[in-house]
Amino acid sequence: MKLWDKGQGADAKTDQFTVGQDRELDLLLVQYDIQASRAHAQMLGQAGLITGEEATSLITALDEMAEEVTAGKFTIGSDFEDMHSRIEYLLTERLGDTGKKIHTARSRNDQILVALQLYLKAELSGIRGQVEGLFNRLMTLAEEHQSVPLPGYTHLQVAMPSSFGLWFSAYAESLIDDVFLLNAAERVADQNPLGSAAGYGSSFPIDREMTTKALGFETLKYNVVAAQMGRGKVERTTATAMASVAATLGKFAMDICLYMSQNFDFISFPDHLTTGSSIMPHKKNPDIFELIRGKCNLLQGLPNQLFLLTTNLTSGYHRDLQLTKELLLPAVEQLKSCLEMATSSLAEIRVRIDILKDPKYDYLYSVDTLNERVLEGMPFRDAYREMGEAIAAGTYKPVTDAKHTHQGSIGNLCLEEIRAKMTQALKG
Amino acid sequence: MKLWDKGQGADAKTDQFTVGQDRELDLLLVQYDIQASRAHAQMLGQAGLITGEEATSLITALDEMAEEVTAGKFTIGSDFEDMHSRIEYLLTERLGDTGKKIHTARSRNDQILVALQLYLKAELSGIRGQVEGLFNRLMTLAEEHQSVPLPGYTHLQVAMPSSFGLWFSAYAESLIDDVFLLNAAERVADQNPLGSAAGYGSSFPIDREMTTKALGFETLKYNVVAAQMGRGKVERTTATAMASVAATLGKFAMDICLYMSQNFDFISFPDHLTTGSSIMPHKKNPDIFELIRGKCNLLQGLPNQLFLLTTNLTSGYHRDLQLTKELLLPAVEQLKSCLEMATSSLAEIRVRIDILKDPKYDYLYSVDTLNERVLEGMPFRDAYREMGEAIAAGTYKPVTDAKHTHQGSIGNLCLEEIRAKMTQALKG
Amino acid sequence: MKLWDKGQGADAKTDQFTVGQDRELDLLLVQYDIQASRAHAQMLGQAGLITGEEATSLITALDEMAEEVTAGKFTIGSDFEDMHSRIEYLLTERLGDTGKKIHTARSRNDQILVALQLYLKAELSGIRGQVEGLFNRLMTLAEEHQSVPLPGYTHLQVAMPSSFGLWFSAYAESLIDDVFLLNAAERVADQNPLGSAAGYGSSFPIDREMTTKALGFETLKYNVVAAQMGRGKVERTTATAMASVAATLGKFAMDICLYMSQNFDFISFPDHLTTGSSIMPHKKNPDIFELIRGKCNLLQGLPNQLFLLTTNLTSGYHRDLQLTKELLLPAVEQLKSCLEMATSSLAEIRVRIDILKDPKYDYLYSVDTLNERVLEGMPFRDAYREMGEAIAAGTYKPVTDAKHTHQGSIGNLCLEEIRAKMTQALKG
Amino acid sequence: MKLWDKGQGADAKTDQFTVGQDRELDLLLVQYDIQASRAHAQMLGQAGLITGEEATSLITALDEMAEEVTAGKFTIGSDFEDMHSRIEYLLTERLGDTGKKIHTARSRNDQILVALQLYLKAELSGIRGQVEGLFNRLMTLAEEHQSVPLPGYTHLQVAMPSSFGLWFSAYAESLIDDVFLLNAAERVADQNPLGSAAGYGSSFPIDREMTTKALGFETLKYNVVAAQMGRGKVERTTATAMASVAATLGKFAMDICLYMSQNFDFISFPDHLTTGSSIMPHKKNPDIFELIRGKCNLLQGLPNQLFLLTTNLTSGYHRDLQLTKELLLPAVEQLKSCLEMATSSLAEIRVRIDILKDPKYDYLYSVDTLNERVLEGMPFRDAYREMGEAIAAGTYKPVTDAKHTHQGSIGNLCLEEIRAKMTQALKG
Repeated sequence: MKLWDKGQGADAKTDQFTVGQDRELDLLLVQYDIQASRAHAQMLGQAGLITGEEATSLITALDEMAEEVTAGKFTIGSDFEDMHSRIEYLLTERLGDTGKKIHTARSRNDQILVALQLYLKAELSGIRGQVEGLFNRLMTLAEEHQSVPLPGYTHLQVAMPSSFGLWFSAYAESLIDDVFLLNAAERVADQNPLGSAAGYGSSFPIDREMTTKALGFETLKYNVVAAQMGRGKVERTTATAMASVAATLGKFAMDICLYMSQNFDFISFPDHLTTGSSIMPHKKNPDIFELIRGKCNLLQGLPNQLFLLTTNLTSGYHRDLQLTKELLLPAVEQLKSCLEMATSSLAEIRVRIDILKDPKYDYLYSVDTLNERVLEGMPFRDAYREMGEAIAAGTYKPVTDAKHTHQGSIGNLCLEEIRAKMTQALKG
Repeated sequence: MKLWDKGQGADAKTDQFTVGQDRELDLLLVQYDIQASRAHAQMLGQAGLITGEEATSLITALDEMAEEVTAGKFTIGSDFEDMHSRIEYLLTERLGDTGKKIHTARSRNDQILVALQLYLKAELSGIRGQVEGLFNRLMTLAEEHQSVPLPGYTHLQVAMPSSFGLWFSAYAESLIDDVFLLNAAERVADQNPLGSAAGYGSSFPIDREMTTKALGFETLKYNVVAAQMGRGKVERTTATAMASVAATLGKFAMDICLYMSQNFDFISFPDHLTTGSSIMPHKKNPDIFELIRGKCNLLQGLPNQLFLLTTNLTSGYHRDLQLTKELLLPAVEQLKSCLEMATSSLAEIRVRIDILKDPKYDYLYSVDTLNERVLEGMPFRDAYREMGEAIAAGTYKPVTDAKHTHQGSIGNLCLEEIRAKMTQALKG
Repeated sequence: MKLWDKGQGADAKTDQFTVGQDRELDLLLVQYDIQASRAHAQMLGQAGLITGEEATSLITALDEMAEEVTAGKFTIGSDFEDMHSRIEYLLTERLGDTGKKIHTARSRNDQILVALQLYLKAELSGIRGQVEGLFNRLMTLAEEHQSVPLPGYTHLQVAMPSSFGLWFSAYAESLIDDVFLLNAAERVADQNPLGSAAGYGSSFPIDREMTTKALGFETLKYNVVAAQMGRGKVERTTATAMASVAATLGKFAMDICLYMSQNFDFISFPDHLTTGSSIMPHKKNPDIFELIRGKCNLLQGLPNQLFLLTTNLTSGYHRDLQLTKELLLPAVEQLKSCLEMATSSLAEIRVRIDILKDPKYDYLYSVDTLNERVLEGMPFRDAYREMGEAIAAGTYKPVTDAKHTHQGSIGNLCLEEIRAKMTQALKG
Repeated sequence: MKLWDKGQGADAKTDQFTVGQDRELDLLLVQYDIQASRAHAQMLGQAGLITGEEATSLITALDEMAEEVTAGKFTIGSDFEDMHSRIEYLLTERLGDTGKKIHTARSRNDQILVALQLYLKAELSGIRGQVEGLFNRLMTLAEEHQSVPLPGYTHLQVAMPSSFGLWFSAYAESLIDDVFLLNAAERVADQNPLGSAAGYGSSFPIDREMTTKALGFETLKYNVVAAQMGRGKVERTTATAMASVAATLGKFAMDICLYMSQNFDFISFPDHLTTGSSIMPHKKNPDIFELIRGKCNLLQGLPNQLFLLTTNLTSGYHRDLQLTKELLLPAVEQLKSCLEMATSSLAEIRVRIDILKDPKYDYLYSVDTLNERVLEGMPFRDAYREMGEAIAAGTYKPVTDAKHTHQGSIGNLCLEEIRAKMTQALKG
């Protein structure tokens, strides 16, 4: 059953081509479509566009449907194009003509928009919670391994003393930046598009403020053309924030894969978190973090995919926009599973405590050694030259006990300040 | 002169390859490098790492340099790798050994980071101002042409009644979403990285809070490794916000190019804003808006370019990161010029007031006609079927005087509410 | 059952995370895995690494499995990680110890590589066939509508006379460029990687020439590290060629959507190829071509996704590479369905024959009119100025009967030459 | 001076916005514009569209201009929009009315197209030559260090024995795949677009076969609309081939940067090819290869930038297409310099010959050890289990003298076969 059926049979192939994955994906959205339909019915009743009785019937039927969704019993059979037609079919089946009235003063365009935005608000909130969880895990690890030394690299060259405390909390603090973007994405999604109908509003005297309040949106997307232009833009903004989280997590996964190499051997995980080889019995491959890395790298391409899809489309709906669902919804699932796997795996990370015994790390202290000379009064450039000569002559002796005391250094991680910053950021 | 010169001559070709466009681009950053150097000198003095007298000399010399920059007299000759070496050279030339001390407790890594972040804060603020300017222009146009009708399209098919008021203010309200992202980008940039040195801090007892205040940063990027990881991330976040503005502007430009086609003929611009053809004398091509569109579409690719550059780089500095400047700085200039051209051109846009006289737009009113029937009590789906039949039979008569009264519709643009929302958004 | 199982139970969640969509996707590849396993078994027998009898048993069992695949009876249950473990399990179940010997001198790395390359060769060949089909359809349409005039646009402005013949055959000739890329992709895929094992070859005296011949590869990827580096590269090259086809098709779809707008009204399709609106009964939306456009635009992003995934991975296998399947295989299906829908829909396209009666197209002939003056001896720039003045003065009279006779112009489409070029291109 | 000047003064700002970097970039193209103009003049003469005398004058003047270009004396002042207007101005200045006739039967659209395609043919040929140069360098290195052992990694884990011979020649053989794409790009560019004028041909009886031969194109792009659609497509195809080369080179650079880390310490370069640190005197950073990596990663984004620019532009010229020059021409220069730096630097690479003495590489031989057991008759899976137990029990003894003899393995690099394949590929 298609809402727009004009009597002509459409080829099955055309049907498959145009419907795509809508039925499966809509199962992730349907609770929000029902929620928005409920608010819409309520508004229609109060605005006198349907009777109070009709509104009550619709609301009751929608509440039942919502329970079916919660119970996992809601399905969208192959007779239906999408959740919109399925919901309307069920309402009509149950309520007769009253069921048909749910579509008064709306269009599938604002129906999908409002469902998508409610979904994104919920998911963004969930992702923010997961980011907080990963942050907390990293901060705990930073505390636990606060003083375990780690070589710091620049250009992949041994450079300066670092620590596990510094490394773990660096990624924690980086996540705060991502929260700023998640917040921005949520503000973009938190504007009610319902009532924009097909993108040009309606001649019915609907009350958009009412549905805004009923659905818990912070504000309306007032202009109906702007609301419609939100399609694509809302998805892009969310994708952008997700890509930012993914970039942080992907970089961390790259560090982990490198540090697990026998050539670094800084960290390890218990066997059940590594993977073997079909022909190399000794291998303990970091597959989980390789997959986190790969999946996060692909998530970084999501905004670009959405840009390619929406570039040079004029204002007003285009069918191309249906495809944003096929990109965004699986990506949300991917990011969530990456965050979950990373956070749970990190609970079992093991760090090596004697890394710096290896003489190849002696040069880590060259800068500290240099600074000692400067603190004694020698101009920096001269001390630099002197030490360069000492190194060349093989007479260099590292100073390994210099203190790093300033904010954010290995001797002063400022974990409390970082926690406070995250708390503040999470407030939005 | 290279700071790291170890006596070996480097090939000129290598030099050109490694230095790239740094000298030209650094002219956009040098004022911020000087500003940060000034704060650094002041801090070194107060922390007792240099004498008060040395600090004063450095500050005075840097202030002079800042004036040279303002006067357009500051140059970075081909003897110098970049602004950092040029500034240090000048300080040493003017102050001898004291000049060399400016590099105490810092590295080129945090030097470029802090300069870049100060630059981005300023540019993001500037762009936000330009976005506000474009918003105001669009809102003024929406008011002026509030009731001039325009066909609304879906699927590029004539769909429902719209208006110039609705169209202009739709893009205005869309810009508010972009402000959310600009704000997020600014928060990411607004965290002082100075003191992170080469990415692992310093054994000198520096005071990072002090430079944070002196430079007007809202907070520190505490963790020095996180500060260093900001390289790439700060640029990406800014690029992301810029891409969002560009997407809105590019879409608007696409609308304009289409509406200027003889097949739409909705709007026009005076001759000096259009371009001719070398062989078609009658042509008035929308080159400005085509170029805005093209440039904005390229700006949408900027985050992806930055992702490609930084993907799978481990923590710690890599030379690849130098290349972010070559991407970001010209892009900032491009976006600014696009915003400027769009805003100034729009001052001269002319709209056609009799568009709907053409009978091809009669069907615009089909939905309103349908709604009249519904308001009379007929279920939506039945009214829909009835009108479908009337259209098929050629007996359809459009109702053209239906009122659109709800929030954000052609009869109720909510311009004040949109203005208030933008004002709120600009507060950050 | 996992090949590398070391006795530890892996979390179900980890399992789901690492296995991903492999089981479903492998159903598209399994026939090629079996085919390659067969060639491998044959080679092992001839090289004396297994007995002739063992080889025969393996081959027989694999042939049976191939029949099960053909009959749609082959499944990969959730007990199995992927097709590789399923195939080996079945062989061992059926043949005992002999079954285990199939994995002699190979690894899952070269197993998936060879299966993927065989799959890509087949799919590239299929896509080339579909491109030829679309080409033929377009050429037929070009012939049929050879002399039906169409306005030519530049800058979306009415510019010069064109024709449906020119338009259809333009896209046909453009497809030839895409064939060049498809050919290149096939050459990249047409190099046998089998025998590279985990990417470093084997100490077994295998015969890679033999499997190369048996599998119909044109040559070997000799170097085993190069063969392993083919992972990612083979996919990217195919993606690149597919993106090229998609760009041509997507552009054509954009033309179609524009030309179906009431503001152009150049072409139409029968009702069963258009889609209605849920609230606008008169709408006939070009959904099929909008979806072709959207899907093709996403396919243009496929190479970028693969670049993001593989960037900065060092030589040697990384688990990230498993994810190429999840990108590439669905994309192949998408491109094939787009080509199919476009080709079949075009069979029913209707073109309007009286477009140029509308006076807005009068200026189409300005250049021809100009050329007449030039042919009479007036310098081009002077004629250009003269006509500009005539247009300004309203005295311009178009010459509408000028002949376009040169190669590739509306009067001389060179369809035979274009057909010959395509024939040549398809030879590779 | 603008060709299309209609008397109205254009704002300087508009001018700057629309002209962009055309003047600088056109200096890379001008020789090809002159070459094509020469062929065009010759054709106009032979077709009787200008007199033989006029043709001769034009050709002589263009030959003089070509000499000025060769001598580095040709300039495009800020009075001129681009090279096209500059060339026509010079011709008119020198030849009066005859000069103006050069623009008969052409447009700036086909002028830039033909110049761009001639340029790309030349540059693609040059890049192919550089790829061959890098290939030869790698093959020489492979021969020189044929038997120097190197650990082979999978998942960044020590895996199996490799060699410098295998590593160098792996990248050499990989370059062959890139040649296939360079060849395809050249075929796309090798189709004469001249005569397509503004994209719809001309009513002049021009002879496009003649200019095709004169300019050395293999064939025509017959259809004039197809020729115009080549704009964007030709650039994308070239970008695609360049991205492929860049991906190979970037991966190699990543390997080099990793192998230069003290944690691997497999290779080194003399001091003049490394870079120091401003505060770490002992550092020898692989800046050249980091920049090759970074630049190559950006080049991988070039096709995507071009897709974003051209997506959803209908057929016919759009001004956006002017921007392809700003993307492509600098990218060509970047790729050439990366290839040059890589090839010249590799001449000085030093490899460590005693890497495998470190006991962490003992497990490299586990597979070979396993294979020995299999060659003795034990089923693979049983041998695998046995060795797993031996490793767990600490009783594992590696077999380090197993021979790798098959094609493409460390004992049989097939360098001659790889050279032959490259020779064949370079023939196109």
